[in-house]
Amino acid sequence: MRIFDIIDRKKNGNTLTDEEIRFFVRSVVDGTASNEQIGAMLMAIVLRGMDEWETEVLTMAMAESGDRIDLSSIDGIKVDKHSTGGVGDKTTLILVPLVASLGIPVAKFSGRGLGLTGGTIDKLASIPDMHTNLSEEQFVSQIQRIGCAIATTARNLDPCDKKLYAIRDVTATVDCIPLIASSVMSKKIASGADAVVLDVKCGHGAFMKDVRSARKLAELCVKIGKKAGLRISAVISDMNEPLGNAVGNSLEVQEALDVLNGKGPKDLKRLTICLASHMVILGGKAKDTAEAERLLQRSIDSGRARQKFREMIRAQGGKDITEKPDLLPKSRYRGVVTAEHEGYVSGLDAAYIGHAANVLGAGRLKKEDSIDYSAGVYLYKKAGDYVKKGDELLCLYSRSRDAIMDAESDIRRAYTFSDEKPETGNIILEEKF
Amino acid sequence: MRIFDIIDRKKNGNTLTDEEIRFFVRSVVDGTASNEQIGAMLMAIVLRGMDEWETEVLTMAMAESGDRIDLSSIDGIKVDKHSTGGVGDKTTLILVPLVASLGIPVAKFSGRGLGLTGGTIDKLASIPDMHTNLSEEQFVSQIQRIGCAIATTARNLDPCDKKLYAIRDVTATVDCIPLIASSVMSKKIASGADAVVLDVKCGHGAFMKDVRSARKLAELCVKIGKKAGLRISAVISDMNEPLGNAVGNSLEVQEALDVLNGKGPKDLKRLTICLASHMVILGGKAKDTAEAERLLQRSIDSGRARQKFREMIRAQGGKDITEKPDLLPKSRYRGVVTAEHEGYVSGLDAAYIGHAANVLGAGRLKKEDSIDYSAGVYLYKKAGDYVKKGDELLCLYSRSRDAIMDAESDIRRAYTFSDEKPETGNIILEEKF
Repeated sequence: MRIFDIIDRKKNGNTLTDEEIRFFVRSVVDGTASNEQIGAMLMAIVLRGMDEWETEVLTMAMAESGDRIDLSSIDGIKVDKHSTGGVGDKTTLILVPLVASLGIPVAKFSGRGLGLTGGTIDKLASIPDMHTNLSEEQFVSQIQRIGCAIATTARNLDPCDKKLYAIRDVTATVDCIPLIASSVMSKKIASGADAVVLDVKCGHGAFMKDVRSARKLAELCVKIGKKAGLRISAVISDMNEPLGNAVGNSLEVQEALDVLNGKGPKDLKRLTICLASHMVILGGKAKDTAEAERLLQRSIDSGRARQKFREMIRAQGGKDITEKPDLLPKSRYRGVVTAEHEGYVSGLDAAYIGHAANVLGAGRLKKEDSIDYSAGVYLYKKAGDYVKKGDELLCLYSRSRDAIMDAESDIRRAYTFSDEKPETGNIILEEKF
Repeated sequence: MRIFDIIDRKKNGNTLTDEEIRFFVRSVVDGTASNEQIGAMLMAIVLRGMDEWETEVLTMAMAESGDRIDLSSIDGIKVDKHSTGGVGDKTTLILVPLVASLGIPVAKFSGRGLGLTGGTIDKLASIPDMHTNLSEEQFVSQIQRIGCAIATTARNLDPCDKKLYAIRDVTATVDCIPLIASSVMSKKIASGADAVVLDVKCGHGAFMKDVRSARKLAELCVKIGKKAGLRISAVISDMNEPLGNAVGNSLEVQEALDVLNGKGPKDLKRLTICLASHMVILGGKAKDTAEAERLLQRSIDSGRARQKFREMIRAQGGKDITEKPDLLPKSRYRGVVTAEHEGYVSGLDAAYIGHAANVLGAGRLKKEDSIDYSAGVYLYKKAGDYVKKGDELLCLYSRSRDAIMDAESDIRRAYTFSDEKPETGNIILEEKF
């Protein structure tokens, strides 16, 4: 078998065999497939497609391409959550302790951010002294002890995805449902959880621009997960504007803390409770959404969720920012941007805000870039809000005054205005069980 | 401008702009486009296509991507010939001296073979002591002196094509008319000749499997050539079975010599005279095919063509194999393959024979491979011949007995038989002026 012939067959629109797909994955991992061959193959997959069966085979081959985490020593149904990536998405920071506070073990491997969307690990790392790099033993024992952990893993999980993802990122082959589904699900399968809730983002700030394709992706992932023996469900959520008001690492930790304190922005609270309720149901602690949401609300109101967050931070060596939020890094400079028009905010482009946050220092454009944990954007006005000329729209934070000036110059373009009050949709677009 | 966006636009089926195509070519040559990006772009071009205008722009950008040869110091209309590549194609060896013997300067840059089809330079290099690597000064001065030369060039001609070709070869993106046309024509434009005859091969042993696509390629190349100011015409020739009877370097030199001596196989003679007559007409030495063919036949009959070959070999330092053909390398081992069936040969797969010649040592599978100049296949029977059981079909030559045994075991599969005499088509399928 030759990689050349497999590319040629996909180019000609054929359905690949199990053997061919597994050969491709092996060749990617062992380096016998050259980068130009991988680039050509990915483009052929984008333009010729892959059917459900091929995508399932690809997912399993990728999941088996490296190490698999064994969480069997932890009692109970281990639940995990995955988001396809959005701007200002700090739900993980909230729902991990929140769900764990109901006695459901939450084992969350997370990554660093690259490009527009921040990584949970970077957000967590903005908590002074917090360890985000746990050994597998530390990770497992922390979950056995306190019920949850969020960390990167040193294990070689899904090396095929790592290679393919890096190549997709530069070859314009990211926006392809079979490739997204196999990337998401292979990592989840290798990560060892028993149950997974997917948050499929949809809108300007997400890979999936419309509900139809988000639904296709959600349904495909759920099917693949079930085939692989996972308990799985999915939520399709709106990502036209950033989630919540804070974008940037320490700003988002503060906002997560607000939600655990029973406050925080409505859209963020709504989505977090929704995703958490899916986790509670999959984890077997509630029979329906109403019961799950009641349990979750009670945990927030009683302070148990916040207490679990505190335990997790302490377990991972972090300073107690739940008691002393002032310990979170603060930016040196800030710049307030005011409205030049009067009217309703009709839209707020998440991709634009994500880009500005990166310019301010909150994210990485290249792997090697270092992060300014205090940098970011705080939104005062979002879609549906009425603003008058001179009203504050948002605030920019950075350790670099130049970066603030750079970001200021065109951030207004993220906003669109209208004379009539726009319909501001629900954050939850669909749920798939 | 980013290479990512250009890939993305072609992926989405857009027509690229002049600026985008030139940016792509520059990025390929200066290395800012990564191999995975080039592989993805090539696949997007194969599956989304390129229109005539895009192909013209690509061709000119490639032609200008490196050095261009200046032949202006040579008097007269310098003619060149290009074949899209076939098995047993030794026409260049014959028509270069033949056309030059009529006083038309022939400046032929040629390459080494890779894959199924042998390179003219390898064939020439089987003549003992022959120099195939001339400096530009040597090349030009030889043509000024004796009217012709065949050599590789050390100049950096069309580096974009070199890079793209190497990547196309491993990514299943060779069989794409816009990519073939731009590759062929950019090299010809950079090579500095005033007139070019194209031999577009068509059949099992060629990139173009049917006349319709061969015609499309021929017409596209002729259009591009005319736009670039070249005198140009094209011949579509049959490449279902090998051309002539000899496949392999020194075997083909011997057969070329046969034709210059007024002998040799009919299909080879016919195609060579046809291509040469195009060159004579483009070179302004005859007004029509009939006149050109008469002049060419006279040069062969009088021995002038053979004498020109001799001069060219002498000028490039080679031993005089026109007088002493025994100086050509002879293989150590031979193996005769006989027929197991009685009937008419209905077909003889050129690709199969080309592959066998490579196994015997006549070609390279990788760039680094060394060549056995004496190795190859000599065909006794071709399509239309009647064979009885036990008749000799072909003879294999090699310095390796094992290679002969390897090739013997399945070379019979190259032949198909039938009870009725097949129509054996003309070697010339179409001509485009």
